[in-house]
Amino acid sequence: MDQRLLVEIIQRHFAQQPEAGMLRTRLYLALRQAILGRELAAGECLPGTRSLARDLALGRNTVLWAYDQLLSEGYLEGQSGTGTFVSDALRSDKAAPPRRLIGTRREGISKRGALIGVDAASSRIQQGAFMPGVPDVEHFPFKVWNRLLARYHGPGHSALMQYGHGGYGPLKVALAEYLNVTRMLQCSPRQIVIINGSHQAFDLCARMLCDHGDLAWVEEPGYWGARNVLRAAGLRLQAVPLDERGIAPTDAHWATPPRLIMVTPSSQYPTGIVLSLDRRLQLLERVEECGGWIVEDDYDNELRYHDHPVTSLFGLSQSRRVIYLGTLSKVLFPGMRMSYMVVPEDMVEAFTLGNAELYREGRLAEQAALAEFIEAGHFTAHIRRMRAIYQERRDVLHETLDSRLRGLVHSPLTQAGLQSLYTLNGPADDVQLAHEALQRRIVTRPLSIYYADPPRDVAGLNLGFASVPVEAIRPAAIQLAEVIESHMTARRGNPLRPAA
Amino acid sequence: MDQRLLVEIIQRHFAQQPEAGMLRTRLYLALRQAILGRELAAGECLPGTRSLARDLALGRNTVLWAYDQLLSEGYLEGQSGTGTFVSDALRSDKAAPPRRLIGTRREGISKRGALIGVDAASSRIQQGAFMPGVPDVEHFPFKVWNRLLARYHGPGHSALMQYGHGGYGPLKVALAEYLNVTRMLQCSPRQIVIINGSHQAFDLCARMLCDHGDLAWVEEPGYWGARNVLRAAGLRLQAVPLDERGIAPTDAHWATPPRLIMVTPSSQYPTGIVLSLDRRLQLLERVEECGGWIVEDDYDNELRYHDHPVTSLFGLSQSRRVIYLGTLSKVLFPGMRMSYMVVPEDMVEAFTLGNAELYREGRLAEQAALAEFIEAGHFTAHIRRMRAIYQERRDVLHETLDSRLRGLVHSPLTQAGLQSLYTLNGPADDVQLAHEALQRRIVTRPLSIYYADPPRDVAGLNLGFASVPVEAIRPAAIQLAEVIESHMTARRGNPLRPAA
Repeated sequence: MDQRLLVEIIQRHFAQQPEAGMLRTRLYLALRQAILGRELAAGECLPGTRSLARDLALGRNTVLWAYDQLLSEGYLEGQSGTGTFVSDALRSDKAAPPRRLIGTRREGISKRGALIGVDAASSRIQQGAFMPGVPDVEHFPFKVWNRLLARYHGPGHSALMQYGHGGYGPLKVALAEYLNVTRMLQCSPRQIVIINGSHQAFDLCARMLCDHGDLAWVEEPGYWGARNVLRAAGLRLQAVPLDERGIAPTDAHWATPPRLIMVTPSSQYPTGIVLSLDRRLQLLERVEECGGWIVEDDYDNELRYHDHPVTSLFGLSQSRRVIYLGTLSKVLFPGMRMSYMVVPEDMVEAFTLGNAELYREGRLAEQAALAEFIEAGHFTAHIRRMRAIYQERRDVLHETLDSRLRGLVHSPLTQAGLQSLYTLNGPADDVQLAHEALQRRIVTRPLSIYYADPPRDVAGLNLGFASVPVEAIRPAAIQLAEVIESHMTARRGNPLRPAA
Repeated sequence: MDQRLLVEIIQRHFAQQPEAGMLRTRLYLALRQAILGRELAAGECLPGTRSLARDLALGRNTVLWAYDQLLSEGYLEGQSGTGTFVSDALRSDKAAPPRRLIGTRREGISKRGALIGVDAASSRIQQGAFMPGVPDVEHFPFKVWNRLLARYHGPGHSALMQYGHGGYGPLKVALAEYLNVTRMLQCSPRQIVIINGSHQAFDLCARMLCDHGDLAWVEEPGYWGARNVLRAAGLRLQAVPLDERGIAPTDAHWATPPRLIMVTPSSQYPTGIVLSLDRRLQLLERVEECGGWIVEDDYDNELRYHDHPVTSLFGLSQSRRVIYLGTLSKVLFPGMRMSYMVVPEDMVEAFTLGNAELYREGRLAEQAALAEFIEAGHFTAHIRRMRAIYQERRDVLHETLDSRLRGLVHSPLTQAGLQSLYTLNGPADDVQLAHEALQRRIVTRPLSIYYADPPRDVAGLNLGFASVPVEAIRPAAIQLAEVIESHMTARRGNPLRPAA
């Protein structure tokens, strides 16, 4: 073809490209585009590399590289001596330039994918006053941890660098022992399944225990993340309200028995309610009758500030229809993405296989470091230390808000975990309130986002105290108190302050 | 109640317990069991702790602890002065000892969970001669890596220890730059989604792009893991046979167009076939017509031994209906569990949200270490080094098997990646053959496991050379050649060796 014309075509494509790329890549892309767009027809002969390089003011190697790439991908054909031609592979009508579909975006995403977006509640902000659900990570013993990580990431431990299958044995031994001592939970190490965080554990339970369309109960209010994961696994959700003894299904609920019940019995999220003994026994009995399963999410059990931690549903289930979940996100650090499940003996094989096949395991070096961290006593020492630190932070937050907002908010003193739920006494829009607080750079989580179907009269804020240095809590709480007070005063339409 | 009787009951439960536990836990469990089993009726008064401790020959603190725990959990009720009683909460008929259901195991697992088990192909053995799909990890620059890990795991980097959302920015910049240079793939950093391994990427694609019951095409033969993940996400699978130009759907296939096509175009797994240009264009055009999606799994593209790597389908798709997947498992180490996706601009928001909600992100410190590892040039230097090492290993394996088994096996010299597929010329049962090799401690993967529906005449072995030190390859290959020869000779019923 006419070389001048080709140079023009290439220069036009050059002009439309971002300028950042390498020249050889840009030339390749320009020629490819010309071929795909039929500006260079099949069979057309291309000029020699030396001559084209000169006309384009490029190095010859740049042109050689682009020709080679196009030859190797089949856009060009050529033999030494006879020159280089645009490939016949592109001659067919099939290879017409593709048409852009209208509205790919909406058309693109699946219905279940769109649903995830609708109910998304994960946040870009993950620490500071008063983000709930996140621990303090500044006090983590990083020196020890880095030493252990380095010990197992090395040429002597190549098996730990490969894909895993069934988790690292000594970590399972350490966790079984730990659960026995602290939770009176009796299990063998092989019943432990190591998993990358609780969301993956919810997902594995949903897929191994439930089929598409099966019914799952979740607590109302409850953890938004569990709802989203279970629904994305194809389950139909029924949100079951709580009373002061925990999840409180009625006979009407039981009339359509669930395949799976997701509960947080040690410290309900976000209310902190401990599931009562009679309710535990009832859940177990009914689930056993209907052939369902309980998933017991025992997050935050390690961080109880006063009373004994209650023993697990897992240990109470004689017919073994409970999956126990524990997480290291709250007691070590969330970014670690490490959780564990305890499954009944007769489910070990299925869950182990499911874990290996669905997610492919690895991270054995980290598991080895963690095993040693637990065995050497760093784990329980860290928990003990953080419990005291968190208790002080909780107290400062409680005292500050209580003294400033007496009567406006209600919160029983938090017994466990990283956050306190404050319910608002009086008219309030908690989503709006959280927005107002955020403008003062205070992060809160409105109670209503924890509901699948928020009642109109519900308003509250879930406040995390754990990741905030104690000296920063009082000033932030005072600011927040002002925001709450002005929000509620405005809503009430009554300028009088409530009696202190 | 009669104290002697209570002591007997407790001792009987003690005798049935594993002896490993702490005494206080064992006493708690014994009493709880007696209460749940109605040996201790509701309202029954318990003896004082001092007296019971004496009769059981236990410390009084042990008994006190067990009583306290039972009180806090609601099994016992008590007031100082009036004694300790078995709780009324247990009086109701509802709290009868649960009946063990028959056949919980089969009843327990879901249909989709059972299917995962049927087709499971992940292995406990993950390195050595000749495990395919795994790299050498001994040569990984661990000193550098550990230094970088330690740099970002520390009190100055607390945001990196928390939950993540959207991945670590500088890593996305580094990967976009890397893809631009090595794959001529033009994307902005925000189009990169960091994910914990390719299985999770398959899963995210299946859920964000497809609904339950949607049709997906997979390559036949192809990667078993992708099949299992897609099916567990509710997709119907159609295995589409290959020809020498890659996946080769017929008009009959296109008559029921798929929602998603999963392909390995750079180097088909396990055959190594490069998807031809005309097939690429055809796939893109048809997918665009029918509104489907292509998932381009570009594993092993970094390790091409001779020719240029072919550019991606992602870059070729003008209507942006391709999701690109890359993995660090093959070029760094699998246990890292780190992969990345490149998604079209208009899907960034949906995929970012889906990733955050479904799996909760974290591991930002590792992502920061990785970003620096790439930026400082360690990444490309390591790949370059390993390419030379692997090429030598591939050559030794090829020469050994070729010279010993000429005519019995067929394998074009592997052009890319960590493994070579050897097909067997003549009657053979490759599953049986792999079993025979394993008895000589040689790991292989039979070709037939890569088929959703293995044809009767297909037999081969996929052999990984990458994780085997070069000096170990020849001896292991000689052993394997003996196993193959004797297997095929026995099957052929002909004792004559084939002409060499």
